[in-house]
Amino acid sequence: MEKNIKPELNMEKIVSLARRRGFIFPSSEIYGGLSSCWDYGPLGVEMKRNVKDAWWQAMVHNRDDIVGLDTSIIMHPRVWEASGHVSGFSDPLVDCMNCKQRFRADLLEGDRCPNCGGDLTQPRQFNLMFKTFMGPVEDGASIAYLRPETAQGIFVNFNNVLNTTRKKLPFGIAQIGKSFRNEITTGNFIFRSREFEQMEIEYFVKPGDDEAQFKYWLDERLNWFLSLGIRKENLRLRQHRKDELAHYAKDCYDIEYFFPMGWSELEGIANRADFDMKQHSLYSGNELSYFDEETKKHIVPYVIEPSGGVDRTVLALLCDAYAEEPDRDEIRAVLHLHPSIAPFKVAILPLSRKEPVVNTARAVYSSLRRCFAASYDDAQSIGRRYRRQDEIGTPYCVTIDFDTLDDQAVTIRDRDSMRQLRVPVEQLTNALQAKLNGEPFETLPPGGKHWLGF
Amino acid sequence: MEKNIKPELNMEKIVSLARRRGFIFPSSEIYGGLSSCWDYGPLGVEMKRNVKDAWWQAMVHNRDDIVGLDTSIIMHPRVWEASGHVSGFSDPLVDCMNCKQRFRADLLEGDRCPNCGGDLTQPRQFNLMFKTFMGPVEDGASIAYLRPETAQGIFVNFNNVLNTTRKKLPFGIAQIGKSFRNEITTGNFIFRSREFEQMEIEYFVKPGDDEAQFKYWLDERLNWFLSLGIRKENLRLRQHRKDELAHYAKDCYDIEYFFPMGWSELEGIANRADFDMKQHSLYSGNELSYFDEETKKHIVPYVIEPSGGVDRTVLALLCDAYAEEPDRDEIRAVLHLHPSIAPFKVAILPLSRKEPVVNTARAVYSSLRRCFAASYDDAQSIGRRYRRQDEIGTPYCVTIDFDTLDDQAVTIRDRDSMRQLRVPVEQLTNALQAKLNGEPFETLPPGGKHWLGF
Repeated sequence: MEKNIKPELNMEKIVSLARRRGFIFPSSEIYGGLSSCWDYGPLGVEMKRNVKDAWWQAMVHNRDDIVGLDTSIIMHPRVWEASGHVSGFSDPLVDCMNCKQRFRADLLEGDRCPNCGGDLTQPRQFNLMFKTFMGPVEDGASIAYLRPETAQGIFVNFNNVLNTTRKKLPFGIAQIGKSFRNEITTGNFIFRSREFEQMEIEYFVKPGDDEAQFKYWLDERLNWFLSLGIRKENLRLRQHRKDELAHYAKDCYDIEYFFPMGWSELEGIANRADFDMKQHSLYSGNELSYFDEETKKHIVPYVIEPSGGVDRTVLALLCDAYAEEPDRDEIRAVLHLHPSIAPFKVAILPLSRKEPVVNTARAVYSSLRRCFAASYDDAQSIGRRYRRQDEIGTPYCVTIDFDTLDDQAVTIRDRDSMRQLRVPVEQLTNALQAKLNGEPFETLPPGGKHWLGF
Repeated sequence: MEKNIKPELNMEKIVSLARRRGFIFPSSEIYGGLSSCWDYGPLGVEMKRNVKDAWWQAMVHNRDDIVGLDTSIIMHPRVWEASGHVSGFSDPLVDCMNCKQRFRADLLEGDRCPNCGGDLTQPRQFNLMFKTFMGPVEDGASIAYLRPETAQGIFVNFNNVLNTTRKKLPFGIAQIGKSFRNEITTGNFIFRSREFEQMEIEYFVKPGDDEAQFKYWLDERLNWFLSLGIRKENLRLRQHRKDELAHYAKDCYDIEYFFPMGWSELEGIANRADFDMKQHSLYSGNELSYFDEETKKHIVPYVIEPSGGVDRTVLALLCDAYAEEPDRDEIRAVLHLHPSIAPFKVAILPLSRKEPVVNTARAVYSSLRRCFAASYDDAQSIGRRYRRQDEIGTPYCVTIDFDTLDDQAVTIRDRDSMRQLRVPVEQLTNALQAKLNGEPFETLPPGGKHWLGF
């Protein structure tokens, strides 16, 4: 797949395309929108499903050593005391004594209000967890939090998973789900929002094996992003400096993507050592540990945590796939999405609205959609329809024309090269399957002459 | 698939099996649990994924007239004023003036406290939406709610979806996602919890077509539950009485399942008329309507809403599939789950831990897991392993023994009939595929003699 370098890329183009084509809308838009919340539209929901399914397939189904979990968003409040979130998950805020606006102290450059120049208060710590109340009374005893990460749902279930699956170290537990952070500073489209979806693995290892496993997971996760078609030159690993390491982390790297606003975190991979297991054992009074059959001793596993963002992955995929390319006298916008991620794998485009062509096109559509996510589009000129499919990343278009009625063949048009191949209808499914898998496909027309190849 | 009538079924058996085998755990269990919140374990998460995928496949991918959406849980607070939830989504509560406990007034039988016999206050309306605050200030202006239903995310995006997909009436928008209700009375395992997952369709039709479409959807949704293998005699439709209809509903039926606690709602199907479209047009100042090409007029569609619970469907499937059956001198517990719902489709069970058998078993496992969710189990006796797989609903077990090394064949054992079939390894994938699809499969051994059939 050939992709152009895109110095022209800026976030506005991605936001505009996403909105215009039904990938992502501002949340509650008819009410003026809700700051930094987003809704996935008909194409976005399919693309996000594809990302999550690809992750689950690679991290859970294709492996013997990882099982899944789906824990609740509202957890026991003691969980967040043990994890350190109640005392430490906060930003320093200052108020302007004149205009009453609030700002993050660590992001201010001067010591006067950036809005009106007024005097600022001393910084106060502001906790980033969303607070709510469970049950009919709103008081301290009923406070609950929306989870700021899915990880803790995994830790508190360690014994349950161990007892029901009888896994041996090393093994992992994977989870995909929503998390919530009451961020003061949001932005860059779906990069940082208050409600977001995570894909997290907690991988439990013997102490001493942690550094080797940590290196393994850096490679493994980087390779996963490459397998989705993200260009290597737009990905990098960045080790956290000692002074930016979280309190629980022995070591941490970010997988960064070169977003329009610069290099930014796509996924964090941390060596959390035994911090979480020990904290929850202490706070809950229930020991989280593993009985080692070899040494006949209970050990507290170390934890390697690859923690990725679903929304950030969607954004990186959109940015990486977007290109503006010359097409005859015009410029086409195209999403070079990996076929596994594209909302539709194939679009069926009849070149006429006359009955025989439409009947054949409908029959082809019915047959293809049993195997592939397929779209049927008969509106406007064929050129505009190609443009529409290019812009939403559909890898292949199949056109049905009057010749089809004679030769029982159709034309497959390739999104990336824009080259075309004529294929007998009866070979169409196999041809598309081969193309989507990146395999060669050769075909001969009934007369024995080679069709135009890609 | 033969299923026994189960007068012996009670909820405790389901809760116990779900916990013991890793389907569903109490949330935050090591901290004493969190009232009526539940976590899906390694098997439960796969089963729930299967339910949601089956719904999405049937309701979105297999249809031309429905598209998907995934909207945020926290929405603009005005949404809930327009929908009527701020003013009307509440239960009447009374306080005991003596012991200070709270009760739902509509569930009390007498007029004195059921706990201590004290006097009760007059009922006050208690809103069931979870409240939180967005941004750094906790005041009236920052109040936000966790959505109590996914439906409103669909309504407020009506224009966005219409503009980006150019759908014609009738068409639908489907969504799966978490909702939250601060219920005072919870219980019956995952039947009523404060955090739950919904599968909702809003199906937009021309006014006048709504009653016929409503009937269509009653059938369509009932058939979907039947397609998952739920027994017909355990499902029924119940029409809401006039006095129990919600304020927005012109008509409503519940699809009820015969749970261990009695007939209870599995899914509600409502004719919401144009209530929501009109309310949001009024409150947002943005007209939600559809331009009818035939009459050249803007019309406000009517809405048919099939609204199902993911967790309730999981619970119904577990209850419906559970049986205790005689097996020689003992009783086996078995989940007769439909293959599409079972966490594993096949388990590979080597009858020896000696190298040649294990090598073959591992090779079979590697090959099968490319096509099916597969499990490998070599612990304890073959009888206990069959029991374990029966109890988690695995439709087929494949045993590899010393004969396999000679005849290159394996034994498939059927969960429901417990009958066995010997199949050449090279035909195993096809045989399982046929069995899982409910198709016949016949095989001949190399010598031409029929194997033992099912």
